[in-house]
Amino acid sequence: MDQSTAPIVPYVYIKHTGIVRDANPVRVVSSCYLEIYTFPFDVQNCTFTFRSYIHHVSDIRIILGKTVEDILKRSISVLSTEGEWELMDIKSSKIKLSTFNQGESNPYDELCFYIVLRRRATLYVVNLLIPSCFLITVDLFSFLLPPQNVDRSSFKMTLILGYSVFLLIVNDLLPVTGSTIPLINVFFAICLALMVASLLETILITNLLVAPCNFCPVPGWVRVLVLRFMGTLVWLPQKSREDKIILNPVARGEVQTGEPGKMWAEAGDPALAELRNLGNELQSIRLHVAQHVDGNQISQDWMQVGYIIDRLLFGVYCIFITFSFIVILSIWSNSYNQ
Amino acid sequence: MDQSTAPIVPYVYIKHTGIVRDANPVRVVSSCYLEIYTFPFDVQNCTFTFRSYIHHVSDIRIILGKTVEDILKRSISVLSTEGEWELMDIKSSKIKLSTFNQGESNPYDELCFYIVLRRRATLYVVNLLIPSCFLITVDLFSFLLPPQNVDRSSFKMTLILGYSVFLLIVNDLLPVTGSTIPLINVFFAICLALMVASLLETILITNLLVAPCNFCPVPGWVRVLVLRFMGTLVWLPQKSREDKIILNPVARGEVQTGEPGKMWAEAGDPALAELRNLGNELQSIRLHVAQHVDGNQISQDWMQVGYIIDRLLFGVYCIFITFSFIVILSIWSNSYNQ
Amino acid sequence: MDQSTAPIVPYVYIKHTGIVRDANPVRVVSSCYLEIYTFPFDVQNCTFTFRSYIHHVSDIRIILGKTVEDILKRSISVLSTEGEWELMDIKSSKIKLSTFNQGESNPYDELCFYIVLRRRATLYVVNLLIPSCFLITVDLFSFLLPPQNVDRSSFKMTLILGYSVFLLIVNDLLPVTGSTIPLINVFFAICLALMVASLLETILITNLLVAPCNFCPVPGWVRVLVLRFMGTLVWLPQKSREDKIILNPVARGEVQTGEPGKMWAEAGDPALAELRNLGNELQSIRLHVAQHVDGNQISQDWMQVGYIIDRLLFGVYCIFITFSFIVILSIWSNSYNQ
Amino acid sequence: MDQSTAPIVPYVYIKHTGIVRDANPVRVVSSCYLEIYTFPFDVQNCTFTFRSYIHHVSDIRIILGKTVEDILKRSISVLSTEGEWELMDIKSSKIKLSTFNQGESNPYDELCFYIVLRRRATLYVVNLLIPSCFLITVDLFSFLLPPQNVDRSSFKMTLILGYSVFLLIVNDLLPVTGSTIPLINVFFAICLALMVASLLETILITNLLVAPCNFCPVPGWVRVLVLRFMGTLVWLPQKSREDKIILNPVARGEVQTGEPGKMWAEAGDPALAELRNLGNELQSIRLHVAQHVDGNQISQDWMQVGYIIDRLLFGVYCIFITFSFIVILSIWSNSYNQ
Amino acid sequence: MDQSTAPIVPYVYIKHTGIVRDANPVRVVSSCYLEIYTFPFDVQNCTFTFRSYIHHVSDIRIILGKTVEDILKRSISVLSTEGEWELMDIKSSKIKLSTFNQGESNPYDELCFYIVLRRRATLYVVNLLIPSCFLITVDLFSFLLPPQNVDRSSFKMTLILGYSVFLLIVNDLLPVTGSTIPLINVFFAICLALMVASLLETILITNLLVAPCNFCPVPGWVRVLVLRFMGTLVWLPQKSREDKIILNPVARGEVQTGEPGKMWAEAGDPALAELRNLGNELQSIRLHVAQHVDGNQISQDWMQVGYIIDRLLFGVYCIFITFSFIVILSIWSNSYNQ
Repeated sequence: MDQSTAPIVPYVYIKHTGIVRDANPVRVVSSCYLEIYTFPFDVQNCTFTFRSYIHHVSDIRIILGKTVEDILKRSISVLSTEGEWELMDIKSSKIKLSTFNQGESNPYDELCFYIVLRRRATLYVVNLLIPSCFLITVDLFSFLLPPQNVDRSSFKMTLILGYSVFLLIVNDLLPVTGSTIPLINVFFAICLALMVASLLETILITNLLVAPCNFCPVPGWVRVLVLRFMGTLVWLPQKSREDKIILNPVARGEVQTGEPGKMWAEAGDPALAELRNLGNELQSIRLHVAQHVDGNQISQDWMQVGYIIDRLLFGVYCIFITFSFIVILSIWSNSYNQ
Repeated sequence: MDQSTAPIVPYVYIKHTGIVRDANPVRVVSSCYLEIYTFPFDVQNCTFTFRSYIHHVSDIRIILGKTVEDILKRSISVLSTEGEWELMDIKSSKIKLSTFNQGESNPYDELCFYIVLRRRATLYVVNLLIPSCFLITVDLFSFLLPPQNVDRSSFKMTLILGYSVFLLIVNDLLPVTGSTIPLINVFFAICLALMVASLLETILITNLLVAPCNFCPVPGWVRVLVLRFMGTLVWLPQKSREDKIILNPVARGEVQTGEPGKMWAEAGDPALAELRNLGNELQSIRLHVAQHVDGNQISQDWMQVGYIIDRLLFGVYCIFITFSFIVILSIWSNSYNQ
Repeated sequence: MDQSTAPIVPYVYIKHTGIVRDANPVRVVSSCYLEIYTFPFDVQNCTFTFRSYIHHVSDIRIILGKTVEDILKRSISVLSTEGEWELMDIKSSKIKLSTFNQGESNPYDELCFYIVLRRRATLYVVNLLIPSCFLITVDLFSFLLPPQNVDRSSFKMTLILGYSVFLLIVNDLLPVTGSTIPLINVFFAICLALMVASLLETILITNLLVAPCNFCPVPGWVRVLVLRFMGTLVWLPQKSREDKIILNPVARGEVQTGEPGKMWAEAGDPALAELRNLGNELQSIRLHVAQHVDGNQISQDWMQVGYIIDRLLFGVYCIFITFSFIVILSIWSNSYNQ
Repeated sequence: MDQSTAPIVPYVYIKHTGIVRDANPVRVVSSCYLEIYTFPFDVQNCTFTFRSYIHHVSDIRIILGKTVEDILKRSISVLSTEGEWELMDIKSSKIKLSTFNQGESNPYDELCFYIVLRRRATLYVVNLLIPSCFLITVDLFSFLLPPQNVDRSSFKMTLILGYSVFLLIVNDLLPVTGSTIPLINVFFAICLALMVASLLETILITNLLVAPCNFCPVPGWVRVLVLRFMGTLVWLPQKSREDKIILNPVARGEVQTGEPGKMWAEAGDPALAELRNLGNELQSIRLHVAQHVDGNQISQDWMQVGYIIDRLLFGVYCIFITFSFIVILSIWSNSYNQ
Repeated sequence: MDQSTAPIVPYVYIKHTGIVRDANPVRVVSSCYLEIYTFPFDVQNCTFTFRSYIHHVSDIRIILGKTVEDILKRSISVLSTEGEWELMDIKSSKIKLSTFNQGESNPYDELCFYIVLRRRATLYVVNLLIPSCFLITVDLFSFLLPPQNVDRSSFKMTLILGYSVFLLIVNDLLPVTGSTIPLINVFFAICLALMVASLLETILITNLLVAPCNFCPVPGWVRVLVLRFMGTLVWLPQKSREDKIILNPVARGEVQTGEPGKMWAEAGDPALAELRNLGNELQSIRLHVAQHVDGNQISQDWMQVGYIIDRLLFGVYCIFITFSFIVILSIWSNSYNQ
């Protein structure tokens, strides 16, 4: 508590009724412990204790000049122009405090005011919570981006970068004092953790989808566990790959019969030799083209595994977000309607 | 109100006319409630009340030394060098305030000054509103970017990142006190929401355009609702796809006749067998090439759906921006010309 | 003006010549109106007025103890260690001010000092102007990036993002007070506007270059206006497209003759039928390949339109930058050499 | 030490037992040297020395009014509402200090309090350490991104950019005073260095993978050292490239035999000439296609070198991160449990 | 100099030896001109002058109570806990200053202390110089990125963006006062200039490599100057392009002979006609494929020019960086070991 800096009034009113009125204004800057656990929706309870520092109860008695309700009403009318804090209630209590030296029988007279303040949360909701939810929503939707064609991991990295910049703004607005960590900090940390987790997941999926050549074929238990079990879990059934196989049965059948066609080569006809030459050239081209497609066909299984895991983790992500948001929101609403 | 920090002048002028002039300068730092709803275009109305704290009206009478117009003129001439605030008007009123203790018949004499200040908005317009409008314009134009070839979603993400950085600048300039949230905060929140919404839309469209293979063919009601109804709404009529179908009728016709061509295979001619071999190879290559094109042709409908929804949401976006901007601008202009 | 915070010296020197010397040091913090229109190159003119607050000219006369040149010389020697401001000149003038109450014949004696300060602009040039010019130069050069292959719009978006971050630094260094907006703010706003304008132009060009399929063929007046008139304006003449047409005249000629070749099909030779089969397959492949190339050939005109407009706007951009820079630099150099 | 700003109490209690109690409150702002080497987990030891400035031990004796344990208990109960610091212990010691002028036999009486404070590290862990670990984890996982298809170097650059923004937040929270550099700064510098190092490694690998045409074939010692030795070290054995060679043996064999096929050209048959024409055309096409694939096949070795070095450096990176984290964590835990 | 804020001690020691000891503590806040040219490695020399303001040398004599070495030793022991500054030396000198009014023969007694302080540079090295060097190194290495495949210009743009963010951190740490601009600012400006220059160079090279179709063939002097002279300068000799020419000599030879092959067309054989049809189709396809490759082959020269200029400018860049770093480091080390 600092010294009063209000101008000093050197007058005391003495009424004919014997009432002495000392209207000395006192401007007090006091510190109040802030319970910032439920930060933007917090209700603070400040205690102001007025007592004589040296005079005992036998010398000075402190009583309320008005009822607490009057003080509350007048304070609200004066404070209605104030900014961040909304005065909700004023309570007072009177305690006769025994002095520190317990031997003395003469306690001090003491008057306590309990001032209940509620923070106006609109500014923080608009500036902190809504942008954060926006970014989490974008992160959620970014699962819709195809991980191969569009660079989803790079998109998510930019998103995390944007979240970092946003945390810079947050840092200016958040209170830093307090022993307990505010719930909103936990909220932001969870958001960041979710983004990072989904980014890591995207990198894994990208690795599975883009560079599957380094893997051996999908082992049996993966095929059973992921493709069949999880696949049905995420409504992505195992593709029937018959359409592609049906596509070129004739050509495939002919490749094998192309070999026995060589036994006719003895019938020495230059045109026939030339035709066979042509056939070999064409076969070589076809193999090059087919290799381009078949190389992808072989890794099709791994890609399917990637897609299924992607969708599964998307579901887990959604469930976790929903759960943690519900918990945080319920804590906040409890605190605010306290 | 703090104590006056101006130097103390220990003199009082006594004129022969009996006028006593106390030219003691007083430097007062007072707080004034700021109505920041229409922030950069706000007009503030501050009330300064001068009265004796202890002397009643029977002891001290307070009257204006000059007319209010003179005070206003002189104040403007002195204040013309000041920065952010422009002095618009000074009004004064004299009230005889009944004391707090209503029993007393002796009120205090009181003099009220109402000072009307208007904020100079140029700096805020140049630093806050114009860049924000620039970014919203870029966001609007980014609908022109083709969602497939150029990575539109990544572009918009970078834009939102830039907007976050811009909000950092805003945060330093904006006033944070005040119970009501300034309209400019709502403006920025709307801008951010619009950007996020258009980003989400872009992700959806990208998903529709790039990865349509996972979908079943366009269902009938979508075809009717989107392709026909919405398509005409956005001047994007359903493409007549005859040009592509006309393109290779001969080849298609021959594929079917290639099968009956096998019944001639009994006529054992090695050259003919070789030719058929060639034909099969060629057919295989053509199928591979055609599959590359046809795969896109099948998803053509979904892409058309994507394009139509894209253009439709672009229209909705434009209408919403125009509407909200008109509302905000009208509120500001009302406030400023008050 | 605050109270002097210098230590108080309770002595007055009285010389035998009758000169009384009061060496009481006074430390004054005064405010001076800053004319920040030409901000980093500004010359400030501060007025300090010393006069007795209560004693008239008949009581106290104020004269200069030294000549102004001596004061200037001594002040420069003392101030040579100071930072941002460079003392350029001190002038003094003596006015006998008539009191506010004009009836009195007894004016106050008054001494005015005009202190001319010039801001040292090196720091601001290095930290503000040079990086801004760097970024504008990069923006200018980014027109050299091919809008198709490399993602020019994304590059420019990153550039604008970098400029936003740079504006954050600027915001810390710029003075915010002042009724007029500093020219440097206009400078930065123009830079930002130019970047945004060139970004919008890039998006338009990209739209023209990448997605021209949605357009009808280039209309006649566009062809005349843009391709011929503007094309010669920007030294990009209309391409003669003969080289591509010459390329495959034989194949094109044969496509038409391929149709009458069907009338020979009656001559029932299985080899011939097979050959025709081959021919049809080949024709189909060729059409697919040609379609891939021809599709781009058709949109060649629109791309040419895009290139011409791109180069034209690049010229306009250069001219505008040069013009606005010359104007701003001339204003600054005028102010600095004042 | 500043002057006490607490209100002055002009009373002294004199009890009938002869005890004189001066309950004058003293508010002292003192500076305490902070040992910030182990910053967010630091334990500070502040020394407060109370002694009479002018009275010797013969005049004033200073003794503790209560035991140190009582003071500690009471202080903790009062301080329990405080924020960042947690009071751990209070010790006191009494020294008779010999005066500065050693000649005097009359020392001052002195009372020392040693106050042990522990910083509550939760906030710093949540805001500083966890995001930094997140970003390092993302950097670690980004090695999974294929360096060719997805632009890994650009991804890492964005990551470093995000880390820079994060360092901005850090900069606001970190203490800047202190002669020794805090361990957490070293931690962040190591993280940044690791990111930059892995980025440089990625650029090198990308150069090796994407632009290998400029190199000569892999020299022998590289082949032995990298492909064989390191390859087995990182479980990436040298690929047996037989599958590709087996793929088109027929076509390759026929290319050589195509040349002797020319000796039959003397048998002048227009159909045969035409067929040979066809064969040459086809061979040319096949060579174009094969060249597209073979060009990559030749650089396959360099790519394998790149992959092996990539995985090797990934291992080194992991080991280094693990090692440095263990060292830092052990120092912190030592300091905190001190 | 502000007034002393230390508590006032109203005692003066009078010893029996006649020594009067006034132990009044004085807390002085003084300003010292900082020479920040060599900022993080600067050595400051502050002068404190103690003299009586009003008493001449005949009244008061000021002498040192202890030797300067004792003061230095004791000060270092006390100051050892301080943060940013390291006390290096204290010198004292005694001057008899003639008064300002030269007529008087009675000068003041004056005692000067010269305090030499050295800034502890570790924090600035870790937070400013090392990250800056990291970023310059990344910029240097980014020349290894192939300018075509990976988007090098976009990478460098992100790097400059990261550098801007880093400059934000720098801005908070750097001192802003001072007439001379610190060398470290020049250092950062040079780094930024280098990055921008290399970005512009990259844009130019990209333009040369990606869009060479708009250029005429490489003129003779460029071919001589760049390809031959500079090429050997940067160890990138002119490619012998024989391998590609050898690749398809047969096909090329046959294209010309394909035309005279038409004179055999009179021999009306439907199979032959069909074969010719096939040949024309194939030729058309081959031309399309060859055109795809030859289009790049024509621009090969310009790409070679681009590569050579790229490597040349890389060398110039390296030399310039090395040179400027050596100069700056030598200035710093000179200043620090002063």
